[in-house]
Amino acid sequence: MRHLLSAADLDRDTALAVLDTAERMAAVQTREVKKLPPLRGRTVVNLFFEDSTRTRSSFEIAGKWLSADVINVSAKGSSVSKGESLRDTALTVTAMGVDALVVRHPASGAVDRIAGWVDCAVVNAGDGTHEHPTQALLDAYTLRRRLGGVGAPADLDGRHVAIVGDITHSRVARSNVLLLRTLGARVTIVAPPTLMPSGVASWPCETSWDLDAVLSGKAFGDVDAVMMLRVQRERMSGGYFPDEREYATLYGLSPRRLDLLGDEVPVLHPGPMNRGLEISSTAADSGRSAVLDQVQAGVSVRMAVLYRLLAGADEVVV
Amino acid sequence: MRHLLSAADLDRDTALAVLDTAERMAAVQTREVKKLPPLRGRTVVNLFFEDSTRTRSSFEIAGKWLSADVINVSAKGSSVSKGESLRDTALTVTAMGVDALVVRHPASGAVDRIAGWVDCAVVNAGDGTHEHPTQALLDAYTLRRRLGGVGAPADLDGRHVAIVGDITHSRVARSNVLLLRTLGARVTIVAPPTLMPSGVASWPCETSWDLDAVLSGKAFGDVDAVMMLRVQRERMSGGYFPDEREYATLYGLSPRRLDLLGDEVPVLHPGPMNRGLEISSTAADSGRSAVLDQVQAGVSVRMAVLYRLLAGADEVVV
Amino acid sequence: MRHLLSAADLDRDTALAVLDTAERMAAVQTREVKKLPPLRGRTVVNLFFEDSTRTRSSFEIAGKWLSADVINVSAKGSSVSKGESLRDTALTVTAMGVDALVVRHPASGAVDRIAGWVDCAVVNAGDGTHEHPTQALLDAYTLRRRLGGVGAPADLDGRHVAIVGDITHSRVARSNVLLLRTLGARVTIVAPPTLMPSGVASWPCETSWDLDAVLSGKAFGDVDAVMMLRVQRERMSGGYFPDEREYATLYGLSPRRLDLLGDEVPVLHPGPMNRGLEISSTAADSGRSAVLDQVQAGVSVRMAVLYRLLAGADEVVV
Repeated sequence: MRHLLSAADLDRDTALAVLDTAERMAAVQTREVKKLPPLRGRTVVNLFFEDSTRTRSSFEIAGKWLSADVINVSAKGSSVSKGESLRDTALTVTAMGVDALVVRHPASGAVDRIAGWVDCAVVNAGDGTHEHPTQALLDAYTLRRRLGGVGAPADLDGRHVAIVGDITHSRVARSNVLLLRTLGARVTIVAPPTLMPSGVASWPCETSWDLDAVLSGKAFGDVDAVMMLRVQRERMSGGYFPDEREYATLYGLSPRRLDLLGDEVPVLHPGPMNRGLEISSTAADSGRSAVLDQVQAGVSVRMAVLYRLLAGADEVVV
Repeated sequence: MRHLLSAADLDRDTALAVLDTAERMAAVQTREVKKLPPLRGRTVVNLFFEDSTRTRSSFEIAGKWLSADVINVSAKGSSVSKGESLRDTALTVTAMGVDALVVRHPASGAVDRIAGWVDCAVVNAGDGTHEHPTQALLDAYTLRRRLGGVGAPADLDGRHVAIVGDITHSRVARSNVLLLRTLGARVTIVAPPTLMPSGVASWPCETSWDLDAVLSGKAFGDVDAVMMLRVQRERMSGGYFPDEREYATLYGLSPRRLDLLGDEVPVLHPGPMNRGLEISSTAADSGRSAVLDQVQAGVSVRMAVLYRLLAGADEVVV
Repeated sequence: MRHLLSAADLDRDTALAVLDTAERMAAVQTREVKKLPPLRGRTVVNLFFEDSTRTRSSFEIAGKWLSADVINVSAKGSSVSKGESLRDTALTVTAMGVDALVVRHPASGAVDRIAGWVDCAVVNAGDGTHEHPTQALLDAYTLRRRLGGVGAPADLDGRHVAIVGDITHSRVARSNVLLLRTLGARVTIVAPPTLMPSGVASWPCETSWDLDAVLSGKAFGDVDAVMMLRVQRERMSGGYFPDEREYATLYGLSPRRLDLLGDEVPVLHPGPMNRGLEISSTAADSGRSAVLDQVQAGVSVRMAVLYRLLAGADEVVV
């Protein structure tokens, strides 16, 4: 592993190895002293061309707990707006002596381009509507724990996961479909016709417009987990949605729909949640909600990714 | 002490214990190597829903000198504006594995709410017009040193402190009245009628509209210290003030008024100062001004608060 | 050395000592563990009244690699806009217990004023159109390496450096002219008449409006290095420039002009580059381009400056 740009970079063995490393990293979170030495003297730069408090903070904490120096560079309104090319910005930042670049960018493909230019490790922290591979890893991590148990992560082979919402614009959906398939899970994506991507026929998953049919298991069999996607309100004006009320009615995880699911079926959401729109408070606050587990998993998974990219070791000594 | 939300959380013994811990922390500031080990591996998040360079920096330095990892999260224009609820934001940030949350919020009571939701220590770094307890602690610390001496902090019992300005909108005033009373001091608040809070009759202090009478001691006896509050110019348009000139004339600490005070009477101001408005440059730059002492005390007091909340020890080993 | 405010603060011996220290610091950049202990427990504050991602990050990395605590304070839209005076802001920040203040300010002379008020070390990270001494140091460092070699930095005595572009508004040009002269180099500045400073006759350098004549060596003899300045597009509307196309034609480093230079002549640019305006991509991407060397040198030079100001030692133990 030189970079982590796409969930497709991870074959089954590597993905499982990262998830196992993350399990070991998670043990640190329960300690009073949350600090490991392996990345001491390494420099990680969070290069964010788009705001993201939660993802940036998660990588920052992950790096610091591994003893790395972490530098935040917000590239919004900085050199970039001064007419500098993306390549020059990336090369300049890395020339300072950076070991890993964690990049978020509003344009799909921008992070891949950067990885082709620089000679340090690059982690894609979300590029446009393309990919967000550490989100897929933390979702898989959360599913393995929820469907198995702490210390006994479940095998995702043959599990059935429904992903619901604005699939077209979701890097979270794209990365999850790829990684879940790699891990042997079956995926069904559910979206209104306007938000179903055009090339979806070639995706390795089932598709549906009927959320009730999917959740009840009538469409493609029982679901083992549901992943609700965030509605980006800024898309509301784009003609993709009728209106918020109708979206909530047709595609929101209402209390009634929650009852269609088995008691043990976890509900995931990448956050921030629009309560009352794609997810009801009943669902968000129920015992089935794995939302905060996902946030916690984010730090462990990002520690695992930085560790494997920078410490160059498969074996974690903690 | 689990949280520090209000000056009212501190009984006399606890307040004095924090101030004594701060005295020991202050010794660190005079060393070449300003670094203590007790919070190594602990994570402190500054969650600021409102800008505040000085308070945020003061907490950041305090945390770093105690060897904590400090993460700054500006919640202005981040997930919050994306429609996330305050509760979800707070739970998300703490789910990453946070030991202490230092929160500033423009709404009175917001920090109390957060403390009720999360399971880590919460420090109120200013909520609306409600409270700012570490400011009250640093003011008490400064008064004890100014009225006593370095290494021999004075007892504030029976001391008389005048607090002057926009009491209605001041969290600084509110926290100071509470803490000073707890420490046995007598407080007189001086404000124009429009800026005197409506329920002030129930406050444990004297009130006056006549600054000269208070400073000269004619109203309620000699004052031992004066605390000038900042005028928030954005309130000027709210009908609270006649105009800046009249405010300066009636309630500013002019050179003439400074002469009404004893030579040893310290002048405090929480900053940033509006020179020429609530405080004259003569007062701000005189030997009686304790403004920079307050800033310095801020780091010691915040170290003491973080130490007591997180290290779980009453005895400081430095 | 108490502060670094101007390139004029550095006499020849001091400048060479800083550059030699930087050479030793650069060795750290090639290590896996980029961390030295000398500034452990020291606090460096980046006080930036103007955005500058690259300079701020470079100082932040330099401080952290020396084990200092580094605090970023963006003074744009903070206390400053609340009516606080520059002096009060500077005194407040340093009262927290700061060992070095790295300051960028849009007003020429502001950093000198601050140095007169505070009692910690101050580094000028760019003040208005006045000076940017660490940029001059990193340029000199880059030239010594490019004209000599790694481990065998060249003597700049008698070398001829052309600085090209908007001299009037360039703190980079001003600091470079001073430092290069101190180091014995000969400088020629090339600018359109509207961008040649009025008092330039008293500067210790030759001047020209004819870039071809200077680069070909016809005007003042062969050049050993060329430094292209950034065109600040916001000045375009000020009547200083005819238009971008004409500027590029007359003063841009086109492929044709690059061929006027010897194969070994390095091309410097402080970044961010406007490709196609003051510098062609052919020049920027050629082997003669030293742009990324400059960025890398920036960290080494800033480590050297912080080390010499704070560790109070001439001898580096690394």
